[in-house]
Amino acid sequence: MSEKIAFLGLGNLGSPIAESLINAGYELTVWNRTAAKADPLAKLGAKLAASPVEAITPGALVISVLSDDAAVKDTFSEEVLQKLGNGGIHISMSTISPEAARFLEKTHEKFGVGYVAAPIFARPEAVKSAVGNICLSGKAAPKERIRPVVQTFVKGVFDFGEDAGAANVVKLAGNFMIAASMEMMAEAFTMAEKNGIERQKIYEMLTSTLFAAPIFQNYGKIVARHIYEPAAFRLPLGLKDINLTLKTASDVHVPMPLADLLKNRFVAALAKGREDLDWGALALGASDDAGLS
Amino acid sequence: MSEKIAFLGLGNLGSPIAESLINAGYELTVWNRTAAKADPLAKLGAKLAASPVEAITPGALVISVLSDDAAVKDTFSEEVLQKLGNGGIHISMSTISPEAARFLEKTHEKFGVGYVAAPIFARPEAVKSAVGNICLSGKAAPKERIRPVVQTFVKGVFDFGEDAGAANVVKLAGNFMIAASMEMMAEAFTMAEKNGIERQKIYEMLTSTLFAAPIFQNYGKIVARHIYEPAAFRLPLGLKDINLTLKTASDVHVPMPLADLLKNRFVAALAKGREDLDWGALALGASDDAGLS
Repeated sequence: MSEKIAFLGLGNLGSPIAESLINAGYELTVWNRTAAKADPLAKLGAKLAASPVEAITPGALVISVLSDDAAVKDTFSEEVLQKLGNGGIHISMSTISPEAARFLEKTHEKFGVGYVAAPIFARPEAVKSAVGNICLSGKAAPKERIRPVVQTFVKGVFDFGEDAGAANVVKLAGNFMIAASMEMMAEAFTMAEKNGIERQKIYEMLTSTLFAAPIFQNYGKIVARHIYEPAAFRLPLGLKDINLTLKTASDVHVPMPLADLLKNRFVAALAKGREDLDWGALALGASDDAGLS
Repeated sequence: MSEKIAFLGLGNLGSPIAESLINAGYELTVWNRTAAKADPLAKLGAKLAASPVEAITPGALVISVLSDDAAVKDTFSEEVLQKLGNGGIHISMSTISPEAARFLEKTHEKFGVGYVAAPIFARPEAVKSAVGNICLSGKAAPKERIRPVVQTFVKGVFDFGEDAGAANVVKLAGNFMIAASMEMMAEAFTMAEKNGIERQKIYEMLTSTLFAAPIFQNYGKIVARHIYEPAAFRLPLGLKDINLTLKTASDVHVPMPLADLLKNRFVAALAKGREDLDWGALALGASDDAGLS
């Protein structure tokens, strides 16, 4: 484990990833906007940095798990990229727009820094048990170098080629499909419920047969029982992602009427004060509409 | 195998079910509106009947796999129910409205005939390999008697209680979710395609990980490659089912905006002359909208 890694962003997802890397023997220097979140990792042996630039070792790796396009662009300032310099690689795990990924790759190139888009499909508990999946895109050489690093905390690695934006397109498509799965279950279970069938019972039948996939089993449990706390992924993040999906689709002239519907579910959920609930709470929309909430 | 069974309706789904029952040793008398479809079964040993009433043995079983509410109501006339009489049971496998199922149970009762709603989730090839699933609802005694019969051609049997309409509600919910799955893949794959990602590649990633369920794998293959012929389940049947779903939901005051969207996809597909394609061709809507067809 010769690689030194700067780790930027210790949210719900960043923290367990950083922990996995420490456990795998990597030398981590961590930074987070709210410094207190780094304390548990310091106890495990991570060095703490007061700023992104301080966290970085020239020519080494940086992993970012930040909230959105603006946060990634702000964090990877000229100062940071200059210090990272030739041979440095940025493993960019945030769910950002493909457009931002393509822009970042170009700005990184000016400083000799490689850029690998590496969005992950995993809830925090899936990171801990290393059963998540990651999509990669970008130039071949940096992708090859970072592969063993990401393999310490995911099960599947999927390479979507050289376009830096491609992995983010797939990530947005996947998140859109997760939200769509919640909406379809919400509508189906609500129709069943008002016909005297227990939500839990139709959930069990469908997710043990036709829809026996992790997404339906895990999110279906949330939707069937209306359990939206604690939030592993908060509602405002769901809205952010669906807005990115719609923008990405619109940019290449792809109408997505189902994504529009989901966006309105998120907007309505926020209007009703549900910002601290898990994004699964979009499913309450169908119950509200049916006079059940 | 002491049960004699009258089998009414030899369409894409009815024929392989009848064949499985013959192979399991049941004595079948078959009837179909278009008589020629019964010929292959006659070769396997089925008796042919010229009318539903002729097919029936008093006090025995009748299985119906017919196209819609009207066909089932017409076929189970007073004459048929009278002949079937006390101890007779109708295993009603058609995808009909829960309302029709409840109505049929009452009319059957007048003649001492048991009614079991038994819609099946299976494409024809799944019947042949007995990997489908069936939902049952209705009174306990007839359900118990018919269980070994249905177990010859499905894998899972799910009992949704005494309400004759319940199994049909679940069937409609499931078919709605299948159509919704096709729509979400159509939109996601189209966004990916116009971003330079092969539909087949995003299909493989998502359906081997988050969406590793039969519905996504099987229908996803159709949607990814746009293969809508031969039709295992034709588009007009998809529209029929989504209309039943919307009617059933509306009757108990459940708005289903996603089902509305799907309905319009089916309507548009028919407007474009796609009535002979598989219902998966609803996915062409997203491609059309994106200027790709």
